Amino acid sequence: MTTNLMTKITSLCKRRGFIFPSSEIYGGVGGFWDFGPTGVRLKNNVKKAWWQAIVEMREDVYPIDSTIIHHPKVWQASGHITSFTDPLKECKKCHKRFRADKLKINQCPVCQGELTEAKQFNLMFETHVGPAKETANKAYLRPETCQGIFINFKNVVDTMQPKLPFGIAQIGKGFRNEITTGNFIFRDREFDMMELEFFVKPGEDEKWHEYWLKERLKWHESLGINPKKLRFFDHPKKSLSHYSKRTVDIEYEYPFGWNELEGIANRTDFDTRNHSKFSGHDLSLQDEKGKKFYPYVVEPSLGVERMVLVVLCDAYHEEKIKNGKRVVLKLHPKLSPFKVAVFPLLANKPKLVKKAEKVYQDLKNHFSAAFDDIGNIGKRYRRQDEIGTPWCVTVDYDTLKNNTVTIRDRDTMKQVRVKIDKLVNYFIKKLK
Amino acid sequence: MTTNLMTKITSLCKRRGFIFPSSEIYGGVGGFWDFGPTGVRLKNNVKKAWWQAIVEMREDVYPIDSTIIHHPKVWQASGHITSFTDPLKECKKCHKRFRADKLKINQCPVCQGELTEAKQFNLMFETHVGPAKETANKAYLRPETCQGIFINFKNVVDTMQPKLPFGIAQIGKGFRNEITTGNFIFRDREFDMMELEFFVKPGEDEKWHEYWLKERLKWHESLGINPKKLRFFDHPKKSLSHYSKRTVDIEYEYPFGWNELEGIANRTDFDTRNHSKFSGHDLSLQDEKGKKFYPYVVEPSLGVERMVLVVLCDAYHEEKIKNGKRVVLKLHPKLSPFKVAVFPLLANKPKLVKKAEKVYQDLKNHFSAAFDDIGNIGKRYRRQDEIGTPWCVTVDYDTLKNNTVTIRDRDTMKQVRVKIDKLVNYFIKKLK
Repeated sequence: MTTNLMTKITSLCKRRGFIFPSSEIYGGVGGFWDFGPTGVRLKNNVKKAWWQAIVEMREDVYPIDSTIIHHPKVWQASGHITSFTDPLKECKKCHKRFRADKLKINQCPVCQGELTEAKQFNLMFETHVGPAKETANKAYLRPETCQGIFINFKNVVDTMQPKLPFGIAQIGKGFRNEITTGNFIFRDREFDMMELEFFVKPGEDEKWHEYWLKERLKWHESLGINPKKLRFFDHPKKSLSHYSKRTVDIEYEYPFGWNELEGIANRTDFDTRNHSKFSGHDLSLQDEKGKKFYPYVVEPSLGVERMVLVVLCDAYHEEKIKNGKRVVLKLHPKLSPFKVAVFPLLANKPKLVKKAEKVYQDLKNHFSAAFDDIGNIGKRYRRQDEIGTPWCVTVDYDTLKNNTVTIRDRDTMKQVRVKIDKLVNYFIKKLK
Repeated sequence: MTTNLMTKITSLCKRRGFIFPSSEIYGGVGGFWDFGPTGVRLKNNVKKAWWQAIVEMREDVYPIDSTIIHHPKVWQASGHITSFTDPLKECKKCHKRFRADKLKINQCPVCQGELTEAKQFNLMFETHVGPAKETANKAYLRPETCQGIFINFKNVVDTMQPKLPFGIAQIGKGFRNEITTGNFIFRDREFDMMELEFFVKPGEDEKWHEYWLKERLKWHESLGINPKKLRFFDHPKKSLSHYSKRTVDIEYEYPFGWNELEGIANRTDFDTRNHSKFSGHDLSLQDEKGKKFYPYVVEPSLGVERMVLVVLCDAYHEEKIKNGKRVVLKLHPKLSPFKVAVFPLLANKPKLVKKAEKVYQDLKNHFSAAFDDIGNIGKRYRRQDEIGTPWCVTVDYDTLKNNTVTIRDRDTMKQVRVKIDKLVNYFIKKLK
């Protein structure tokens, strides 16, 4: 049944223009997904909600946007070249490779051939910058955006003169050459990340770690995610990453079980120290007494696609209604691809269509709005329910007489009659 | 003097947190640039202005967001594997490589060694997907975003049921392994693109090409770009790309001369035909009589970084003032990183600071706002002028008495006194 739900969500995403397998007409590429017209709106709204909370509404966070390709030495300093690996075994017969830690028997699962010893395989995508394909020109597609923040730490300090504690945030692409992908957009090879690196004084790191755990949980709840499906998971000491003093995940109960949604790590002064050492530029600061110290880093880090998946799983509902059942995405209005859809009651009556287009144009100046005249009203409600549009406005024959329209609520399915000149304010109030 | 201006702009960008050389503490990587706290806001505002005009305010354009890595066959269909190349010569002595079409003499410019014959070098960055580094797994970082649109054409048609003419738009990263980069962010190896593919009936392509030429020029002018520095350049037939029937650039007069800002191409049915042929999925549509045809494509295509450079060059002014001179970015308020900056007259008077913070918080709920209490008022004006903040609000001792503040206009440098409770409306009016 749980796998069933993932199948249903994947199918809805395809049917309603949210998410398509990337390069689908060429047979696809595993671990890559494209966002369609409704999906890109949902994804952008997720990014916007994060940016609003982390950057716009705070005084202590500075945004940046660094490139995907860094100087290769960055990945030496970060430890990725040595540590960002999975153990792989290769079949001596068919030369296919497999994750050694996932194999149950020591024979090729494809052709039963003999397997080699496990070798460490680096998960960073490699490329070359410039015309020569030499080791000196080797570069990597970043597997996380935070290194772009650390290498700009000095630039931000010099230009913005911030006082500790302060954060640097960015949203951007990451790439991981995963051996096994799966669960729809849960684990992709190409994805977007939203990362905040919050720099604090040594000794204040644990306090700020607690602060961000609470802040981030609140954020997820503010977007309507079911609190019963959210929990903290404290990583045991022995399984912590090489840079971490403590990492706590916010987990979500996906249809396939509890798993990571967001990671909140206390990275200590690993990054400021290591980049100082490898780059030769000192990233230390001075305290009030002029004593030098390396700032500690608390990092809340979240994948956009994973958040989109959580939002979809959480919003997906099947409900019995009079004439059967309906599928409805009960998205928080902030995240809905469209806030409102406008229908002319009949698509072949020019007077209704003209009036509906006028209403649509007026609303479009204030909210993301859709115009829908395909199929009968029932079909349009079904479509907008599946897209998660909170309100549908219908222009009918009464509209032509008294300038009122019907507003239908997605969740209650109740309808109210409202004057056209009160519509904008009606929705502004609802959206507050 | 013109190079001088580029140097000045590059230096301002570094000094004021707009743009830094990527991986600067590691010595940088040629052709890669990072956006700092002010720069990312400017860049995002440029994207937002495009998205607003192309997606949000139109009924006939559908947005998508496709991955950077496609199935490799996509680049066969597009012609990039054979045609997206530069001719290179290699020095037989020092093994450095050079653009053959840029060399003036047939000897290595570095060590005077003998050069090889020219070979075609493909400008796409290469990588491998999955654990095996085999030809079969070779993949490319897209050099343009439009192919992601063509391969999703069928998905958009099936899910959105649009009627011709209609467009599909996206904003996303592109990569080109340029041999020679330069002119600051004019030609990068990693950049953002804003592309619209507008699908039309064959025979209507020339009309729509003209339409988009006008629309796009209007857009640039609406953002305050000096119309005298914008012109059309019609590419001569013989230098057209392999897919193009006609391409017209919107050129801008940069400090280093007239050059491309945006390209608007009539791509014919090259893309819909070729992807049908290579993928085996038919991308044709049917006309009213049921006759099959391949839609034509008109493509306005624009690099975000290049647009940012134009905006910066166009906004940069040096002016004589009473006590010397000032540098000011006369940015369109829509594009300014901050709409307003709030100052307490003195940073060490808690009453002024508290009041100023209150004003700042109120404004922040409506506009992107900065709080600035570093240095004296003169220094703060200079800083905000260089960031392009249209209005500065100062909280002084009179504020504590009568709840009024000073608003200083960036361009006229004139000051007016306004009641605090009228501030939000004052700026809303100004921003309209």
